[in-house]
Amino acid sequence: MNAEPITAAQAPGRIMAGEMAEQPAVFERILRDGVAPVREVAREIEARRPRFVLLTARGTSDNAALYAKYLVEVILGLPAGLTSPSTTTAYGARPDLRDVLVIAVSQSGGSPDLIDSTAVARDCGAVTLAVTNAPGSPLAQAAELHLDVLAGPEKALPATKTYTAELLVLYLLVEALRGGSGTAAMALPERAAGLLSRSAEVGVLAQRYRFADRLVTTARGYGYPTAREAALKIMETSYLAAHAFPGADLLHGPLAMVDNESPVVAIVPDGVGGRALAPVLDRLRERSADLCVIGTPEAVAAASVGFALPGGTAEELSPILEILPLQQLAYEIAIGRGFNPDAPRALAKVTETH
Amino acid sequence: MNAEPITAAQAPGRIMAGEMAEQPAVFERILRDGVAPVREVAREIEARRPRFVLLTARGTSDNAALYAKYLVEVILGLPAGLTSPSTTTAYGARPDLRDVLVIAVSQSGGSPDLIDSTAVARDCGAVTLAVTNAPGSPLAQAAELHLDVLAGPEKALPATKTYTAELLVLYLLVEALRGGSGTAAMALPERAAGLLSRSAEVGVLAQRYRFADRLVTTARGYGYPTAREAALKIMETSYLAAHAFPGADLLHGPLAMVDNESPVVAIVPDGVGGRALAPVLDRLRERSADLCVIGTPEAVAAASVGFALPGGTAEELSPILEILPLQQLAYEIAIGRGFNPDAPRALAKVTETH
Repeated sequence: MNAEPITAAQAPGRIMAGEMAEQPAVFERILRDGVAPVREVAREIEARRPRFVLLTARGTSDNAALYAKYLVEVILGLPAGLTSPSTTTAYGARPDLRDVLVIAVSQSGGSPDLIDSTAVARDCGAVTLAVTNAPGSPLAQAAELHLDVLAGPEKALPATKTYTAELLVLYLLVEALRGGSGTAAMALPERAAGLLSRSAEVGVLAQRYRFADRLVTTARGYGYPTAREAALKIMETSYLAAHAFPGADLLHGPLAMVDNESPVVAIVPDGVGGRALAPVLDRLRERSADLCVIGTPEAVAAASVGFALPGGTAEELSPILEILPLQQLAYEIAIGRGFNPDAPRALAKVTETH
Repeated sequence: MNAEPITAAQAPGRIMAGEMAEQPAVFERILRDGVAPVREVAREIEARRPRFVLLTARGTSDNAALYAKYLVEVILGLPAGLTSPSTTTAYGARPDLRDVLVIAVSQSGGSPDLIDSTAVARDCGAVTLAVTNAPGSPLAQAAELHLDVLAGPEKALPATKTYTAELLVLYLLVEALRGGSGTAAMALPERAAGLLSRSAEVGVLAQRYRFADRLVTTARGYGYPTAREAALKIMETSYLAAHAFPGADLLHGPLAMVDNESPVVAIVPDGVGGRALAPVLDRLRERSADLCVIGTPEAVAAASVGFALPGGTAEELSPILEILPLQQLAYEIAIGRGFNPDAPRALAKVTETH
């Protein structure tokens, strides 16, 4: 332990590295202290019988919201959409939101447009729920219901532990709404620790991208929020043009851009989404794309390089784990380029758009 | 006129150029022959009183669907969402879609996943509407209702006239649903012709991107579908890594990547969305970004370069016009690099994902 505080300039990436390493402990805390509040919120929601779910978020939290959208559509069988706060805050839309559950996801709970759009949704008849890492935040107060993701203070600009904490709390919420026990999540802390211990493998992968100036990530289904979040982490820490595409959309135009000029990182979890991506990976190989797979050992073996995920995790839980090596990849690329991932140029922790 | 057919190899871009030039005539055809069918479909939809709208599409048509989402939320005051076909086709979700209007948008009407997800939505109780350029297509048949966008055969791989035709038909549908007269759209053919006649200005702009290998597009609100469609056209014709961000999200991470390394193209229509983008443009200027504005003369004057749009078009109609110089920009960049925009490498006109 150091008696003197170490600043970002002295040890670039130290804060982000520490927060990434905390994730197994955050999962344990959520599974211990977060389940009861989640069940209480689920009971409140059930009593109101929502027919539709709208999710609102920005940046990293928008990727957590996208994960929740898949859970809501696939597991709860409710139609769901991601909304843009600007339709209410800029255009003054006042939709009829009776029977609608509106979930706003935000690490800080401080973005003015999310606060305003949540207040408007509540006025328009929605059941509103804020999922934040800041129970005293204006967003938590603007919503009727609140869930704390219990990640503890996050100081590095790139969100890591708050992202996976949001995913886990949203998973537990959907699990409670479907009447499940949530026990499948109990293995997450240990599995997360196992993945994080393999940082040396990620360091080798990062070498490959030392001089890349663009990168494409892709996945289908539950893996797609991971593809988006990985691209965002890489953009904000390493300044590559990292671009996420759903597998099917990649074939609709962007494939022309890929060829062997843009390396591709594909998320291939064990399950439906991974299998549905197979024809896309075949097309990428035909085009001689440089392909890195984060996924099943079989998919890694058929790629240029990769990081194999151990089996045994339900597909709907895999996004909480498969992002971990990708957070480390973003970190390692940044360090390798001499950047400080704790404090990327140009960014602020709370984004003040109205 | 040429007696011999000219192949793509003999005159690269000839097909795409011809289809771009047809757009004013396509708008005229829709305004003459398309309004009555739109009104009939609107009456069918009104009789069913949908509470929620879900839109499904891929690629270029997904950008048209996004435009319709803004129209539905802002003008009709109905909550709306973009869905991924994979939740039904890959994961087997069977949501309760009573009171839900599901709109599938597709130029070809031939993508298997859209056909299947539309059939499932119909089984699940939704009112289903297909918007296609192919009235005999399987998608048109799978949906209960159909609207033909009347663009005529499209042969170039990059969709241009079918995109703007989809936008106009979706606008007219929302206009009919709100009980409007649709007369604001009558000026579109002439205004479109006026913009297309300024291709020399676009040619000068294209020079600037001759050696760019990445590019960012941005907008807020109604301009955002244009930012996405412009990025897609540039990717598929010129193979740049072109990446669209909503203005607010750009400040959440991607801004670190921009600086003066990625040129930025901002869509700044006269209206709420353009005004809401102003703080984002300020931040870009602070970061010395190379900024091209397609928008109001004032916004163009404050940028590095740009293309001024004449005033007098309602903001909700502006996406049908402001994409025109951006289609030309994609075309000109491709030609300048010696590529053939009619037939980009790696792409097929109907994308066969399941």
